[in-house]
Amino acid sequence: MKITLAHGAGGRETEEFIKNLIIPTFLYRNIEGGIGLDDLEDSAVIPISSEEYLAITMDSYTVSPIFFPGGDIGKLAACGTINDLAVVGAKPIGMLDGIVVEEGFNLDELKKILRSLESVLRALRVPLLGGDFKVMPKGSINNIVITTCGIGIIKGSPIRDSGARPGDKVIVSGTIGDHGAVILALQSGLEIESEELFSDCQPVLPIMEKALKIGGIHAAKDPTRGGIAMALNEIAKKSNVMIAIDEKRIPIRDSVRAYCDMLGVDPLSLACEGRVVMCVDPKVADDVVEALHSIGQEDARIIGEVCEEPKGYVVMKTIIGGTRIVEAPSGEIVPRIC
Amino acid sequence: MKITLAHGAGGRETEEFIKNLIIPTFLYRNIEGGIGLDDLEDSAVIPISSEEYLAITMDSYTVSPIFFPGGDIGKLAACGTINDLAVVGAKPIGMLDGIVVEEGFNLDELKKILRSLESVLRALRVPLLGGDFKVMPKGSINNIVITTCGIGIIKGSPIRDSGARPGDKVIVSGTIGDHGAVILALQSGLEIESEELFSDCQPVLPIMEKALKIGGIHAAKDPTRGGIAMALNEIAKKSNVMIAIDEKRIPIRDSVRAYCDMLGVDPLSLACEGRVVMCVDPKVADDVVEALHSIGQEDARIIGEVCEEPKGYVVMKTIIGGTRIVEAPSGEIVPRIC
Repeated sequence: MKITLAHGAGGRETEEFIKNLIIPTFLYRNIEGGIGLDDLEDSAVIPISSEEYLAITMDSYTVSPIFFPGGDIGKLAACGTINDLAVVGAKPIGMLDGIVVEEGFNLDELKKILRSLESVLRALRVPLLGGDFKVMPKGSINNIVITTCGIGIIKGSPIRDSGARPGDKVIVSGTIGDHGAVILALQSGLEIESEELFSDCQPVLPIMEKALKIGGIHAAKDPTRGGIAMALNEIAKKSNVMIAIDEKRIPIRDSVRAYCDMLGVDPLSLACEGRVVMCVDPKVADDVVEALHSIGQEDARIIGEVCEEPKGYVVMKTIIGGTRIVEAPSGEIVPRIC
Repeated sequence: MKITLAHGAGGRETEEFIKNLIIPTFLYRNIEGGIGLDDLEDSAVIPISSEEYLAITMDSYTVSPIFFPGGDIGKLAACGTINDLAVVGAKPIGMLDGIVVEEGFNLDELKKILRSLESVLRALRVPLLGGDFKVMPKGSINNIVITTCGIGIIKGSPIRDSGARPGDKVIVSGTIGDHGAVILALQSGLEIESEELFSDCQPVLPIMEKALKIGGIHAAKDPTRGGIAMALNEIAKKSNVMIAIDEKRIPIRDSVRAYCDMLGVDPLSLACEGRVVMCVDPKVADDVVEALHSIGQEDARIIGEVCEEPKGYVVMKTIIGGTRIVEAPSGEIVPRIC
């Protein structure tokens, strides 16, 4: 059997592949009292004292093209890892990177990528502690692949995908699918105007910090590969709840919707790289939305709520008045989207 | 300007590239009281209490061929990261991996690689806590690249490259250049017999634990890219000492020497993947060697000593009776050696 693009696309096949092939291979997958491989959370978690946990996460970035409206692979690699820490409630304290480039790669482009990565870390005062740099001969890798590892500290309890409770409001922190749409459009060879289509790539740490200050955040995810369709399905399954969302409330840019229509893809399954979906105590949900508006996340809104049944499903009330099940995306989705 | 293979080969150009390009790009590079990017140690170190440090390291493995006598890319990725933790005196507590494969990659080969990686972790009871899995379209990556991140705990003080002191004995834990020779021979298309040429790829944790139990370990490195030539030059520079080694004492397999002669390379600059060079208090150096023999490292021996002057140099007494300066290797050395 051969590996297909779908195995790495972040949808159902990736989940099955990890559950059926990777997890059973490893005898040791967790540290007692922590969150490990089986949990498939955004970060692994290691208890370090009675009140603190260490969060650690790692992602490989293969995005193509490496420069795109709204960012580049360097910014993406920094944000993606910061975001995986942020959504479990961790404050990032350090990052490492493993950079693999093709022989003949342009040095100025590499500098630009490093500066992008750095500017994200600088703004959050996160040090780059170390890493690795390798060059592969011409033709054995396309451009550049960056792997980043981030570590952070959680004071109190980690936020889990399994924490959503019936009655919670589902909040999305901004428009969805922006990153996926721009990458997909570029890969499809479409001409795009950067004023109308650009990645949402940004660190969600300020969003999470603001929301956590208010409290009542029961579950949170950054909806990257597989989009909010994947993220909400994971929360629904792990929390053993149903998530009901309302299509007309989901913030989607007109330009993203137009490109999605043109390209025949569902914006719900397109990656975001600077958004959070959270399940929030209904008593404070409006306060959280308002707080997010106050820090420039003006499209943050409640898009649905957490219900009891049917457990493990995401159901959407559509604009035309019906309801449909939002499945975890399947197939190739978009290769090299992040 | 273009990136060359030498920039990623682990020799002088890599060092200069990191010092001149990567380090100046990043404003934040350390955590107070820790070891960060500037230090170019095998692991970064973060203080977590008055008696404990967290060590963290990350490496990208691009070795070609991916299967070789003595190991494969999975075993290498596990050992390499474990070893970077071990040589700073850390006990590994967890690992993450970022796997990027080419579309169409053989599933059975992937399983074999994962099992190799796992068997290293299993033997040391180190859990795989999480990671990432991506697939790149056919032709955009050759086979597979694995990045591993390891974290460990240091009780007491980290072992630093800068810790060598005049009078210390230089110990190597086994034969040198085995890994580099086999990869280079395979890349050169030579027929090799696996009984005579095989990688030394193994975790050095038992070696370090045994040595640390005796004490007096002032500096330690696993001599990977650039071999012991690079490792000793780094120690000499950072410790501000001269290191004098004796060629006739350096353990090199006859087969490795023969292939090196045939290929025109210096075994001192060839990667090892299961060895440690250490600078050890002369009072306990013989005990350390004996202890290493007792755990199956039968080729461990003292190969030289640390002197005062000329600072920053590695000097070798040659078999034919002269002396020569052992420089940090330069140029392409061997691409995709690890």
